[in-house]
Amino acid sequence: MLSYRPQMWCSAGVILASSLVSALAQSAVTASPNPPSLPKQATLAVLPMPSHVTAGTGQFVFDRGFDVVLSGYQEPRLDRARMRFLQHLRRKTGILQWPQASGLPQIVVETKSSSAAVQQVSEDESYRIDVTPMKIVLTAANPIGALRGLQTILQLIHTTPQGFAIAAMQIEDKPRFPWRGLMIDSGRHFITPDVIRQTLDGMELVKMNVLHWHLADDQGFRVESKVFPRLQGMGSDGQFYTQEEVRSIVAYARDRGIRVLPEFEMPSHASSWFVGYPELGDSKGPYRLKHALGQSWERPRDAAEDSSMDPTQESTYKFLDRFVGEMSSLFPDIYFHIGGDAEDAMIEWKTNPRMKQYMDAHGMKDPAALQTYFDQRVEKLIAKHGKRMMGWDEVLQPDTPKSVAIQSWRGLDSLAKSAASGHPAVLSWGYYLDLNEPASRHYAVDPLADAAGALPEAQRANILGGEAAMWSEYVTAETISGRLWPRAAAVAERLWSPREVSDSASMYRRLDTIAQELTYAGVPYVAARASAYDRLTTTVPAAALNVLASVVEPPRGYPRGGSRTYDSFSPLNRLSDVVPAESDLGREFCAVAGRIASHSANAEDLKDAQKWLEQWRDNDTLLAPGLGQSALTAELVPLSKNLSRVASIGLAALERMNHPGASAADAETFKKNQLAALKTASAQTAELNFAITPGVEALVSAIQR
Amino acid sequence: MLSYRPQMWCSAGVILASSLVSALAQSAVTASPNPPSLPKQATLAVLPMPSHVTAGTGQFVFDRGFDVVLSGYQEPRLDRARMRFLQHLRRKTGILQWPQASGLPQIVVETKSSSAAVQQVSEDESYRIDVTPMKIVLTAANPIGALRGLQTILQLIHTTPQGFAIAAMQIEDKPRFPWRGLMIDSGRHFITPDVIRQTLDGMELVKMNVLHWHLADDQGFRVESKVFPRLQGMGSDGQFYTQEEVRSIVAYARDRGIRVLPEFEMPSHASSWFVGYPELGDSKGPYRLKHALGQSWERPRDAAEDSSMDPTQESTYKFLDRFVGEMSSLFPDIYFHIGGDAEDAMIEWKTNPRMKQYMDAHGMKDPAALQTYFDQRVEKLIAKHGKRMMGWDEVLQPDTPKSVAIQSWRGLDSLAKSAASGHPAVLSWGYYLDLNEPASRHYAVDPLADAAGALPEAQRANILGGEAAMWSEYVTAETISGRLWPRAAAVAERLWSPREVSDSASMYRRLDTIAQELTYAGVPYVAARASAYDRLTTTVPAAALNVLASVVEPPRGYPRGGSRTYDSFSPLNRLSDVVPAESDLGREFCAVAGRIASHSANAEDLKDAQKWLEQWRDNDTLLAPGLGQSALTAELVPLSKNLSRVASIGLAALERMNHPGASAADAETFKKNQLAALKTASAQTAELNFAITPGVEALVSAIQR
Repeated sequence: MLSYRPQMWCSAGVILASSLVSALAQSAVTASPNPPSLPKQATLAVLPMPSHVTAGTGQFVFDRGFDVVLSGYQEPRLDRARMRFLQHLRRKTGILQWPQASGLPQIVVETKSSSAAVQQVSEDESYRIDVTPMKIVLTAANPIGALRGLQTILQLIHTTPQGFAIAAMQIEDKPRFPWRGLMIDSGRHFITPDVIRQTLDGMELVKMNVLHWHLADDQGFRVESKVFPRLQGMGSDGQFYTQEEVRSIVAYARDRGIRVLPEFEMPSHASSWFVGYPELGDSKGPYRLKHALGQSWERPRDAAEDSSMDPTQESTYKFLDRFVGEMSSLFPDIYFHIGGDAEDAMIEWKTNPRMKQYMDAHGMKDPAALQTYFDQRVEKLIAKHGKRMMGWDEVLQPDTPKSVAIQSWRGLDSLAKSAASGHPAVLSWGYYLDLNEPASRHYAVDPLADAAGALPEAQRANILGGEAAMWSEYVTAETISGRLWPRAAAVAERLWSPREVSDSASMYRRLDTIAQELTYAGVPYVAARASAYDRLTTTVPAAALNVLASVVEPPRGYPRGGSRTYDSFSPLNRLSDVVPAESDLGREFCAVAGRIASHSANAEDLKDAQKWLEQWRDNDTLLAPGLGQSALTAELVPLSKNLSRVASIGLAALERMNHPGASAADAETFKKNQLAALKTASAQTAELNFAITPGVEALVSAIQR
Repeated sequence: MLSYRPQMWCSAGVILASSLVSALAQSAVTASPNPPSLPKQATLAVLPMPSHVTAGTGQFVFDRGFDVVLSGYQEPRLDRARMRFLQHLRRKTGILQWPQASGLPQIVVETKSSSAAVQQVSEDESYRIDVTPMKIVLTAANPIGALRGLQTILQLIHTTPQGFAIAAMQIEDKPRFPWRGLMIDSGRHFITPDVIRQTLDGMELVKMNVLHWHLADDQGFRVESKVFPRLQGMGSDGQFYTQEEVRSIVAYARDRGIRVLPEFEMPSHASSWFVGYPELGDSKGPYRLKHALGQSWERPRDAAEDSSMDPTQESTYKFLDRFVGEMSSLFPDIYFHIGGDAEDAMIEWKTNPRMKQYMDAHGMKDPAALQTYFDQRVEKLIAKHGKRMMGWDEVLQPDTPKSVAIQSWRGLDSLAKSAASGHPAVLSWGYYLDLNEPASRHYAVDPLADAAGALPEAQRANILGGEAAMWSEYVTAETISGRLWPRAAAVAERLWSPREVSDSASMYRRLDTIAQELTYAGVPYVAARASAYDRLTTTVPAAALNVLASVVEPPRGYPRGGSRTYDSFSPLNRLSDVVPAESDLGREFCAVAGRIASHSANAEDLKDAQKWLEQWRDNDTLLAPGLGQSALTAELVPLSKNLSRVASIGLAALERMNHPGASAADAETFKKNQLAALKTASAQTAELNFAITPGVEALVSAIQR
């Protein structure tokens, strides 16, 4: 599932067709942040947007004098949720809560009954909130609905002249899809337990409910096995989760109403297993832990690092039986994800005489048939341990048992095909956060669009939801949160909120407040980025580096485009490693430029564009003296100079709008020259692209005389 | 010891005499950041400054390929220190360390032998570092010296065109004083265990070695007692450390070479004990937990909250005997601090008939004699449990056993008196961080100055060092780190480095890098402040609020001066609660203004002053529309307006310098009017003062015509 290539989305750093101009102008004026039933003036910076909201009268003012009371069904998880709620509220408001007393305003959490002992795919997550001036009542069928409602309440709190408050209102809310996941790849880079916990905190905030944990890949086997201790002992460089840590994280997730779905890739992407257990591999070994990164099509295959499991040996299945047994007791979820990718196997099995012989002996016509056989054997032993198998698109074969869930990275057609075949189906195509696409692109992908939407109702019901995916080739424990957030929240809203909630301008506005809320929820990604920037500003003014950082974006898609080579120990401490995937200021500038180009700009737009462009033009003067003095920033010398050039082109266009040239022919020459210069100055540099280039291009293209 | 009043230091918000002008100008030009033996161009942003440094040739470049090797004496604490070192290095550089391999550059930590099982006051903390291009060798007599040296190495790493590196050099270093403490008051506000741990991380970075932990006061008894469970059960609002947490923190401190000195205040400041055990109190009860804050002289005394221990009952000593026994086993340090403050007792004991009768019967002439009796009884039972007593100045009486250590809040005279009387003596006068004084003031206080310095050598040797103190009336777990750091580091340097290291300009430069280093060490105080500012910018532009925040300071000394009343549950979420105690930009501006006023400014100075003043003048335009829309910022409306006024006065002065008036008499009128206007505009507002006022005053005062 790694060969996903998002050509259709490539745009940053590329000179766009001038038809962009009108699209840019339009996107920024679209409105309607709130559901129709709520008055426009009410603040509802909630994400995901609840399905139904009705305004009331007055507001509930938070002061130190209030109680949070649990009522109805009780369990320790709810007590902990109450403490977490108070902590978030304290971080958000600074309010220290008085010891409980009678007569105080109350937040009452009324839970009807328990949820399942092991969280099910289709738990009731609905809740209702009634906010009145002296009381907030949250009602839910079970603790999971209560958790969802508590997050909504926290997000509703905002500043007013009277203090922190929530406007009186009624909310009725439930998710559109029962499967709203996030895939974290701990295989390529080890993501430390504290960062996994922070990720769960962020997921709770935006009501995601599945942590899909990719726990092994060629670069590392990350879970302690007591039955096969050489798995982590020789296959992890010492970077793995102990079983105690796993249990603690699973419990942490359950506390937040999140399932943990373990994935152990097989038959390919499993060479880290063979370092300690070479008998499992399909080559002759010896095997070694792979440190190289990147896609398999980018390098020649090396059997010592790129081998797959040997499907022809009974011992393989015996091993897997015991292994699945051990992991099944560690991970309580009903699903057990085997990946199912066989890229490398397809190469080896075609030529390896042992495989060929086995295929011949068993009447298998090709490696694909052998893979099907392998998958079916594995499915049986997973079922034997009381679990259901899950895999990526590749495991879908005509004979695959209907209980097997399919995760689609290929697209909506493949999702539809799985659902039509009767398989539970989950969409990840369109939700690959590691591709550094803008949130709006992910937001626009709907699991029930196109082929999937056209299915009959009964088959459509097999589509359980989706999962954002974060492969970790180019992120570490330090940088992953800054690439996950806040964009994962856009996917979370797509999967929770009604389909009609689809205005990306509203989504971006609310993403902005969620970005802040994440800090209160315990996800310090803003601070982590600030600290990473600090390394880059030891020889230059911090403000000037921030100016540069705020208008660049890392390349979209997998190729990084630069001259650096990467392995799993390469420091990811350059600007391209730590800037947000999406430039907010770039988006804003492009919208303003679009309005200018389409003659729908106001005076403020013109002032902003001029001010920004001048700042970008002049910024290199501040950066140039210091960038070369640090090995980390030397690569930014030409980038900073290019920013100055791009901005100058934008300023020249504005100037020409104010003082048109003599003729349309003149203008064409001007445009041609400027666009050529823009293309040169916008060439990807230091593995970064300018997010403002499309806006500057729009300005230049709009010149008439 | 809370009545310390720093009148001598009051200056912020007060119009200073114009003699300041030359002082301001001078302080900023003083140089010499490095010891004389190191070439000037070498970077040595280390704090505290080592006692001896010799430059070498070349540099050790950090790359992923290096090993940190422990050699000589081994213990698990050193392994953990190694892991911590690597984590700090990873945060600072982003370098992910390769799995160990042979032939890599090495950092070798050569430890000779163990330190004491319980850390002693006079451990050998010396170390030596040899940096050469392929090897760094750290040598220490014991693990504590190794810990100190590791922190020096981390601080030495800096960016170069070749990568992160340390210049070749030799360092020989040892502390000037064996007692370098930090007092944290967990009584008035409960400081959470995670913040205590972060504080220990910060202390390790700057080589402090005593956490003096003020664990009980009228507002709360913060340690779990299993023998007397109503202490925390009724006396803490549920905010206390379990014994398990205490043990974990003591171990955490030991890992960092830090002693933990517990303080339980008696006989006064102990009313939280009486809520659960009223028989200990000297009034008739019932007692209740005090929530009011502030100094005792600010309020009428309330016997239910302000009572003291009853020194006339044998049962009191029986209780204390069992209590000290329990706490002695929890806190391994040789010292047991009883505070010794008897402010409230002096009032009660004078009039309470039971006390008078007891004093008469035992021939005690006054409450002071009764206090002495109490202290002596307590000292005996502390000694019985194998500990030495420590107390503030008040416990020093002629008969006090010489083993009792005295902590001086009164001044160098009192410090000298304790030392002269043969007591181990520790200075805290001059180091009260909660008074919001600038780092330079604390830095200038030397434990061996004045009377203390004049003692004969043998008595002077009784002066063990000093302790920074952070009383917590106006800080919470959220805000305390922002008030501790980075100023505590100035005290740390005073107590570690040679006395000649005293240039405050150098100290401030290095404080700036330490502020950054603290984040890498795990003290997220910069992020915590950013998050606190976020609450204040929901209705105004963040950048504009930052401009205002960067030039204001909270009041110095205890009176807050505003109309808010405080108790221990008051939200501390206003700007005055969260700005740094000292404005760096204010200090910088005042230095520039001083140079301008004394005609020693260069062109850059003039440009900076003009640019800053214009920004401050115009900032209110950005803030005014939104400040009133949030209850948290409404109080800043007049402050922001005043900043505009103060800046306009500064600009008028610059303008007048460029275009002098007709006569000196004219100038006098101008000055008089402007200074009056400055005084009005600089009146304390929203419990904040402008740090730039002295600079503006200097500009105005310098006008000649």
